[in-house]
Amino acid sequence: MKYIVGVDIGATNLRIALATNKGELIHKTTIPTPRKGGELTIAETIRDLINKMIRDKDIEIEELKGIGIGSIGPLDIRKGKVINAPNIPIHSFELLRPLKDWFKIPIYVVNDCVAAVWGELIFGAGRSYQNIVYVTLSTGIGAGAIVNGNLLLGKDGNAHEVGHIVIDYESKLRCRCGGYGHWEAYASGANIPKFINYLLSKWGLTAQEKNSELYKAYEERKVTTKLLFSLGKRKDPLALRIIDELGRINACGIASVINVYDPELLTLGGSISLNNPNLVLNPILKYIDMYVINRKPLIKLTPLGHDVVLLGAIALVVSTPHTLVNIQA
Amino acid sequence: MKYIVGVDIGATNLRIALATNKGELIHKTTIPTPRKGGELTIAETIRDLINKMIRDKDIEIEELKGIGIGSIGPLDIRKGKVINAPNIPIHSFELLRPLKDWFKIPIYVVNDCVAAVWGELIFGAGRSYQNIVYVTLSTGIGAGAIVNGNLLLGKDGNAHEVGHIVIDYESKLRCRCGGYGHWEAYASGANIPKFINYLLSKWGLTAQEKNSELYKAYEERKVTTKLLFSLGKRKDPLALRIIDELGRINACGIASVINVYDPELLTLGGSISLNNPNLVLNPILKYIDMYVINRKPLIKLTPLGHDVVLLGAIALVVSTPHTLVNIQA
Repeated sequence: MKYIVGVDIGATNLRIALATNKGELIHKTTIPTPRKGGELTIAETIRDLINKMIRDKDIEIEELKGIGIGSIGPLDIRKGKVINAPNIPIHSFELLRPLKDWFKIPIYVVNDCVAAVWGELIFGAGRSYQNIVYVTLSTGIGAGAIVNGNLLLGKDGNAHEVGHIVIDYESKLRCRCGGYGHWEAYASGANIPKFINYLLSKWGLTAQEKNSELYKAYEERKVTTKLLFSLGKRKDPLALRIIDELGRINACGIASVINVYDPELLTLGGSISLNNPNLVLNPILKYIDMYVINRKPLIKLTPLGHDVVLLGAIALVVSTPHTLVNIQA
Repeated sequence: MKYIVGVDIGATNLRIALATNKGELIHKTTIPTPRKGGELTIAETIRDLINKMIRDKDIEIEELKGIGIGSIGPLDIRKGKVINAPNIPIHSFELLRPLKDWFKIPIYVVNDCVAAVWGELIFGAGRSYQNIVYVTLSTGIGAGAIVNGNLLLGKDGNAHEVGHIVIDYESKLRCRCGGYGHWEAYASGANIPKFINYLLSKWGLTAQEKNSELYKAYEERKVTTKLLFSLGKRKDPLALRIIDELGRINACGIASVINVYDPELLTLGGSISLNNPNLVLNPILKYIDMYVINRKPLIKLTPLGHDVVLLGAIALVVSTPHTLVNIQA
């Protein structure tokens, strides 16, 4: 019972780690998340990676305390199954049942951001707090929340789908989940290019903005989220105007999150935040007071960086949240 | 210890009840909520009403098990104090400390909708559920939430300010709290007339709509929320169009609530819902699927009606939520 396995199933990458009971990482592996296959493909891939990892490290299965999994959602938490995930080509897949059958050790499956906020509590910036929210700005937008020390799960394990808060009741853009006007439809990595098209079809532009590199890319239909932020770092005027507007949108979403969960600490993670900390955080802090009613929490990047979900998955086994024990034990 | 006092502090009315330990109401009093005075005026009014009520019923203070209070918010829950309530002229006032000093019995103070959802769990439609949200559509819009059996409070007791979810990132209307684009700024009783002005300045109207009674009232600047719904009941075409649009806005707000708390049961209360059940509930059910990602809960009016906050306040004493015991015991 000396080792713990953590798994982070993202839209792009599948990451597996072996850690000690104290959360020290011994080994990490990253592969692209399988994009083809059936309901068991992802579980089989995880099984094979774990078996290879423990064989390579000369560890017996009996030495594993458990496996924690943070997965892209939405989930059916009772079944430990992903159902209709909009941001992954295998939309629905089993995790808990087959992995329990194969390994016969404790296995916990929660949404990736739910794992992350638990990681923040056990290993990260949240160790002295009872009310913590972790928000990811990445391919999608999601969150995990701890309120009064309790990890929020909800009836199906999805009490945190904050990317699907409706921030535009006029529903100008549609989300990949099928819903209208969701925060994620405007400001997630997958949707920012569509939002840029919308903005540029609507905005009047200055001569300087029309001369910008971003506008050229727009005319050539080559705008990506990555390009937006890399041009922002080079002070492209149109990129900076769009990044400011995205910051206002994110401030609306984050203010709503603060207004519904009332946290003391809100940490940001996900590739967009972690790769562009100033361009993401500064506009949020500029606009947040326009939208928040509750007392503002400390808002900052997660100190756990790109490992936050992986460490959170491990934290689920180190100190299992009682709301989860009741459901998956 | 045979009796419990429940207090419901609303924007318009202050209600006090005496109940048995089983939640049977023995006596109820309603007065207008004091609109003038200092930080102690409301607590003093409550003290005097309780003293009169128990004297009239020939009950000793020693026979009271406790006092539960559901108040308009936002709150500082540790201090049991209301701070900057936008919908009441005495914006900030003390409750917990002076009432504890005067009565020397257990006193619990939570937001009115937080009390209501606890009432739903103990006495109402939520007795067989672990994940429940209560939403009020009234002068303001608010909610209380129970997730995995735990009553959500948050760092200051405001983990439920759903009326201040930003549903319009373009921020066309401003909320009485000072925030922009909040759900409450469009669809609460206090703000519906302003939203109607906005809609009618923007919409093209048919000849039939221009001939409607509601349009006449609009031209005479006599539109009220009450008039809107009473004309809706009489099938005024413009009133019905506006009520449908309000339903879409409420569907955006309620879908966001479902997406962040993942409840099994969502009950609606507040004067707008309770006085106009079909005109409120039907448009919400018509539009909700456009906006919700989580599995839809049962959505219905609270069976506790106008007494839901009062019964909730009593429920706080009957079976005190452990998240509250940790804070106010």
